[in-house]
Amino acid sequence: MNYSVIRYITGWVIFTISLFMLLPALVSFIYGETSVAWLFIVCSAVFGALGFVIKFKKPSTKRFFAREGFIVASLSWIVISMIAAVPFTISGEIPSYLDAIFEVVSGFTTTGSTILTNIEGLSRGMSFWRCFTNWIGGMGVLVFILAIMPQASGQAVYILKAESTGPSVGKLVPKLKNSAAILYSLYISLTVLQIILLLCADVPVFDAFCVTFGTAGTGGFAPLNSSIASYSVAAQNIVTVFMLLFGVNFNIYFLILAKRFKDAFSNEEFRWYLIIYVVFTVIVGASLFVSAPEHFKLTDILFQTSSIMTSTGFSTTDFNLWTPLAKGILVILMFIGACAGSTGGGIKVYRFVVYAKTVKKQLSTLIHPRSVKVLKMDGKPISHEVIRIINVYFATYIFVFVASLLIILTDGFDLTTSFTAVAATLNNIGPGLGEVGPMYNFANFSSLSKLVLSFDMLAGRLEIFPLLIFFSPSAWHRK
Amino acid sequence: MNYSVIRYITGWVIFTISLFMLLPALVSFIYGETSVAWLFIVCSAVFGALGFVIKFKKPSTKRFFAREGFIVASLSWIVISMIAAVPFTISGEIPSYLDAIFEVVSGFTTTGSTILTNIEGLSRGMSFWRCFTNWIGGMGVLVFILAIMPQASGQAVYILKAESTGPSVGKLVPKLKNSAAILYSLYISLTVLQIILLLCADVPVFDAFCVTFGTAGTGGFAPLNSSIASYSVAAQNIVTVFMLLFGVNFNIYFLILAKRFKDAFSNEEFRWYLIIYVVFTVIVGASLFVSAPEHFKLTDILFQTSSIMTSTGFSTTDFNLWTPLAKGILVILMFIGACAGSTGGGIKVYRFVVYAKTVKKQLSTLIHPRSVKVLKMDGKPISHEVIRIINVYFATYIFVFVASLLIILTDGFDLTTSFTAVAATLNNIGPGLGEVGPMYNFANFSSLSKLVLSFDMLAGRLEIFPLLIFFSPSAWHRK
Repeated sequence: MNYSVIRYITGWVIFTISLFMLLPALVSFIYGETSVAWLFIVCSAVFGALGFVIKFKKPSTKRFFAREGFIVASLSWIVISMIAAVPFTISGEIPSYLDAIFEVVSGFTTTGSTILTNIEGLSRGMSFWRCFTNWIGGMGVLVFILAIMPQASGQAVYILKAESTGPSVGKLVPKLKNSAAILYSLYISLTVLQIILLLCADVPVFDAFCVTFGTAGTGGFAPLNSSIASYSVAAQNIVTVFMLLFGVNFNIYFLILAKRFKDAFSNEEFRWYLIIYVVFTVIVGASLFVSAPEHFKLTDILFQTSSIMTSTGFSTTDFNLWTPLAKGILVILMFIGACAGSTGGGIKVYRFVVYAKTVKKQLSTLIHPRSVKVLKMDGKPISHEVIRIINVYFATYIFVFVASLLIILTDGFDLTTSFTAVAATLNNIGPGLGEVGPMYNFANFSSLSKLVLSFDMLAGRLEIFPLLIFFSPSAWHRK
Repeated sequence: MNYSVIRYITGWVIFTISLFMLLPALVSFIYGETSVAWLFIVCSAVFGALGFVIKFKKPSTKRFFAREGFIVASLSWIVISMIAAVPFTISGEIPSYLDAIFEVVSGFTTTGSTILTNIEGLSRGMSFWRCFTNWIGGMGVLVFILAIMPQASGQAVYILKAESTGPSVGKLVPKLKNSAAILYSLYISLTVLQIILLLCADVPVFDAFCVTFGTAGTGGFAPLNSSIASYSVAAQNIVTVFMLLFGVNFNIYFLILAKRFKDAFSNEEFRWYLIIYVVFTVIVGASLFVSAPEHFKLTDILFQTSSIMTSTGFSTTDFNLWTPLAKGILVILMFIGACAGSTGGGIKVYRFVVYAKTVKKQLSTLIHPRSVKVLKMDGKPISHEVIRIINVYFATYIFVFVASLLIILTDGFDLTTSFTAVAATLNNIGPGLGEVGPMYNFANFSSLSKLVLSFDMLAGRLEIFPLLIFFSPSAWHRK
C-alpha cells in the first residue's frame, strides 16, 4: 500500500473542498448573512491550511494500483463529508453532527434524502452549500482534482475508475487529465444552460442556482420544502428534460461535440435508457388515467419518472398517493437507474442490458446447442471479464442491500418504508415510499440506521467495491 | 425436435397420473363418498385410456437432447395440471376450471397457495387428491416415471436435469434408472416415518396422511383451514423437523445410507442451510421477544422459519402480525429457499453460497491482484460454466419476477401484497404477506393474475428455463 500518495491526494481533496466553501461565504454576504459568511470563511481557512499541510510533502513513490485507487476514493468521500458537515453543526442549523453527516453524504452522493423537517429554515448560505454538495458530488470531486492537480499521471486511471459510475470507463482522449477537464467543461456548460433557462421560466435567482445544482448532480436537494412543486410548469418541464440529460453517459456529449454523431446515436445503452423511460412513463400514465384520474397530470408523470429513473429524487407531487402499479414502476426504476458514466445512480441501464443479453444468449444456446453466439454491445464483443464483473456487482449489491435492510428493519418501520429507504439510498435516489415518501424525511430513523444508510449512499455512489475494500482490514497491509 | 419421444413420454405421464387417481377413489370409498369415488374412477379410466393410446406407438428414434428434455418437462407438468384439475371442476367443488388449474398447479409445484376460501368444505376424496398433488410434485412426476418406465436410457439425464432443482444434478449411481428408484425409495421411507410419528402425536389418520404429503413435497396444502395450528404442539414440532429434512439435498441421505458419513456432513450447502436457519430463527425470536412479546412462542417461531425457508408454507400462526424485522426475514428466507436437489423451492442455498464466494473472491482479487484463487465447493473447484449458469439464472429470475410483478400490480393490491404474491409463487412458498398472508388466499386476483401466478409457480418448480423454452416459438422448429 502506497500511503504517501493516499495522503497526498487526500490533502488535495481537503484543500479543494476548503476552496469550494468560499462560494457559500459569498452567497451569505450577498444575502446579508454576515455571521454565516464568516463561519464559512473560517472553516475554509482552517481546512485549507490542514489540506495544504497534508499535501505539502510530495509522495515518495508513484506506485499506485487499483487498491490504492479504491482506498483514495473512499477516504476522500468520507473525509469531505466529515468536513462539509462541520459548518452545519457549528452554526446550529443541524445541531446533531451525525445528522449533518447524513445530510452531507446524501448531498455528495447525489442521493437527496434529507433529515431536515424544515428546509426553508436554513440560512441562504447553508441552503446554498447543501445544494452545492449535489453539484460537486455529481461529476465527482476526484475527477475535478484530476483536472486541476499538477502531476496526475499513473494514479489517474485508477482514481477515475473508482469514482466513475458504470462497469467500464472509457477515456475520451489519450490524456486522462484532458478527459477529466472535458468532462467538467461539459458539466459546467449544461449547468449554466439550465440556470439561464430556469431564470427565463420565472424561477428566482437563488432557487435557479440551487435547483440546477440538484439537477446536474441528479441529487435532488432543493431550497424549498415543496421540492419543485411550487415553480411554474415551464420550470418543471425544464427540470424534467435536464434530469434526463444529466442521466446520459457524458461520453455521448463528447462524441456529439466531436461531430461523431453516428457513434453517439447508435449507443445501445442510450437507446434503452430512452425506451425504458418512455415505456414506463406511458404505463404510469395509463395506470393513473384508468384507476386514479385525479392524479393524472402529464407534467407530474413525465417529471416523476424522470426524477426517479435518473435518481434525482425531486418531486412535484406526492407519488405515495399514486396507484400500486405506478408506485411499483417507480420502485423498479429506482433499481434500473440512469446510464453508466452519467451523474445518475441506480444499478445502471448498461448492466441491465448486458444482463438481458446473457439471458437471451442462454435461451438460444439451450435451444440450439451448437450455435455459437458472442455477446455484443454497440457492435463490439463484450469481454468475459466485463460480464463477470457485472455479475459480481449484482451479487455484492444484493448482499449489501439485504444486510442493510435487516438493520433498518430493527427500527420497526413497515416493510415498504424500510425496503424503499434502502433502495432510495443505495441507488442514490432520495425519497422512497411510505414514511420516507416525498412528503416525509429520514429524521425518525435511529442513529444506527442513519449510519447504515449513509454507508449505503456512499456505497451506491462509488459502486460498492471501493467502500468494501476500504473497510477490509486485509486491504491495509503494507505489502 | 424429436416429437415422437415427446409424445411417448407425455403418454406415460398421462397414464401415470390416471393411476394415481385411484388413490383418492379408494379414500372416497373408505369415507363413504361413493359419487366422488366413481368420479375419480371414471376420470382415471378416461385419462388412462388416453395416455395408453398416446404412448402406444414406441418412438421412432431416440435422438434426445436438452431441448427435448425441457419441452417434455414443461409439457408434462402443464398436462398433468390440466388433467388433475378436471375432477375438482366436474364435481363442482371448484366450479371455475381456471381456479382448479391454479389450485392444482399450486399443488404439483409444491407451492401451496390456494384460491379456496373454505378448505374444509371439500369432500375427503378431493381434499386427499389436493394434498396428494403436493407429494407427487415434490420428487417430480418424471423422476417417478424414469424409475418405472421400461426403457429409459439416453433421454433420462436430460429429463432429470429439467425436472430436478439446483444448478447441477449429480447421479447417485451409474445407472440413472436406479438413481431415480433410490430417490423415490428414500422419499417414500421418510413419508411413512412422518405419518407414523404424526399418528403417535394424536393427529387423525386422514390428516396425518394429508399433512405428511404437504410436508414431504414442501408444498403446504393441509386439510384444515387453520393449516397446522390446531394440531398438538408435538405434531407441530414433528412437522417442523420434517420440513427441514425434506429441504435437504436427497443425495445426502443416499450418502448416509452408503455409510459415507464424511462426505455427507462436509457438504457445504447443507451446513449453510442449517446456519441460515438457526441464525435467522434466532433473529426472529429476538425481534419478537423484544418488540412483540405477545407473539413470542418458540414452537411457532421454529415452525414458521422452517416452513418458509423450505418453501412449504404451512402456518401455525398469523405471521402478518409479527414485527417488520421478523416479516422481513421471512421474505428474505422466501428467496433463499432450501437445498438444491431437495423437494423445496426458492433460489436455493447452493446458488447463494456460490454467489457469496464470487463476491469474496472478487474482493480478494481487487486487494491482491496477483493472487490466483479458485472457487471451490465441497473441496472441488466450481467450473466456470456452473458459475455462468447460476448468474444467468439470477438474471432470468429477476426479469421474470419484475414482469410478473408489473402484471399483478394492475389488480391494484398494495405493494407488499403484490410483491409477496409473486415471491410466494415463484419461490413455491404458498402464503405471502398482506392480503395473501396466511389467513387469506389468492381468490381475489383477476384471471390474468391467476394465470401469471400459475406460470410463476411452474417456472419456480422447473427453475424457469424449461418453461421459457417451452414458450419460445423458435424451440419448436423441426431442425
